Amino acid sequence: MAGPLAVVLVSGGLDSCVVAAIAAGLGEAAFLHLNYRQRTEARELAAFAAIADHYRVERRLVVDVSFLQQIGGSSLIDPALPIPEEDTEGVPSTYVPFRNANLLGIGVAWAEALGAERVYIGAHGEESHYPDCRAAFFAAYNEMIALGTRPGAGIRVETPLIGLDKGGIVRRGAELGAPLHLTWSCYGRGDRACGRCHSCRLRLAGFARAGLTDPIPYI
Amino acid sequence: MAGPLAVVLVSGGLDSCVVAAIAAGLGEAAFLHLNYRQRTEARELAAFAAIADHYRVERRLVVDVSFLQQIGGSSLIDPALPIPEEDTEGVPSTYVPFRNANLLGIGVAWAEALGAERVYIGAHGEESHYPDCRAAFFAAYNEMIALGTRPGAGIRVETPLIGLDKGGIVRRGAELGAPLHLTWSCYGRGDRACGRCHSCRLRLAGFARAGLTDPIPYI
Repeated sequence: MAGPLAVVLVSGGLDSCVVAAIAAGLGEAAFLHLNYRQRTEARELAAFAAIADHYRVERRLVVDVSFLQQIGGSSLIDPALPIPEEDTEGVPSTYVPFRNANLLGIGVAWAEALGAERVYIGAHGEESHYPDCRAAFFAAYNEMIALGTRPGAGIRVETPLIGLDKGGIVRRGAELGAPLHLTWSCYGRGDRACGRCHSCRLRLAGFARAGLTDPIPYI
Repeated sequence: MAGPLAVVLVSGGLDSCVVAAIAAGLGEAAFLHLNYRQRTEARELAAFAAIADHYRVERRLVVDVSFLQQIGGSSLIDPALPIPEEDTEGVPSTYVPFRNANLLGIGVAWAEALGAERVYIGAHGEESHYPDCRAAFFAAYNEMIALGTRPGAGIRVETPLIGLDKGGIVRRGAELGAPLHLTWSCYGRGDRACGRCHSCRLRLAGFARAGLTDPIPYI
């Protein structure tokens, strides 16, 4: 691919696949996958590799961030805590303390080492109950990057989905020809999606709102 | 120890030992050691444990941040690059891209999980050639924390050495009875300090300026 180099955080889920499609259309993409040993990591890593193959991405980095599991405090990565099926008020129990700051920190370090000026992340409007998924957080993060990297590095985090809901993300992905059939979103299972966890329900509602059928298998 | 709980980043070096002495005097301390597989990690981990034992710290966390080595770009952690003995203009080759942002990210995540409101780091005035060691960077980091953690978490990074040079740090440590004999600073060796690397020379100059003798062995 011609064009500038950008680091893209690719979990293997729907959102990051659409972000990868956006970044791949603008220049060369380097894909970063963060393995924080969540329940469904093996399935998400397979999705990451399939999406990277689809876009013929050469620069790939998989980083073990299992310190997030050591630290704990989230049902997403702590097997002792139940995954909630219902929405709750306030910050959900699946919130991982300061996760996005940590994941972006690795992305920015890699960008600085590679000479890339952009780091893409798939945060979006329906995650605004997580404190580290809001536009104000990313703006503050960019101020911090400007002061914490080499003079002239010019690195910025980009959140092209921040104004979209899941329906808008599915539509955007379909318009860009993103390989949504290769993605995985379920928090609970790795073989077929449960259809009931918070992530599955958001995803299914997104496809419904976009008037499209989700191509992945459900139980 | 009575008092509020604080996370302290303890590398095993001189600076973080003095910060540990400051934090231990204010309340209960939780010690965090980041292993980024630098050349002298085994020696630094031993120093970490000795300092933690000295202050009877119960909460200890060692996190592998070897992704900083995967990412590369620094002579401090890349065996293929020489360690500089002379000062150079600009950002030194021992600069690890975005290191402090990454290390603090782990400290803040642990603080949020523990309910601690302070994260101490030993950045100081003689490191201002590293972009992520300057007061303006830490101020921006604190703005970002306020937006990226749970409402009311109240977490702040504290840099009690930021206005001090190495002489001032040695004096402060001696005043507080910090166990400086248990610390390790050399970038190049783990048995006896080389006395020639940038870190050794800063340390020795600090003891000289403070009018004290460095208690660790040199070659």
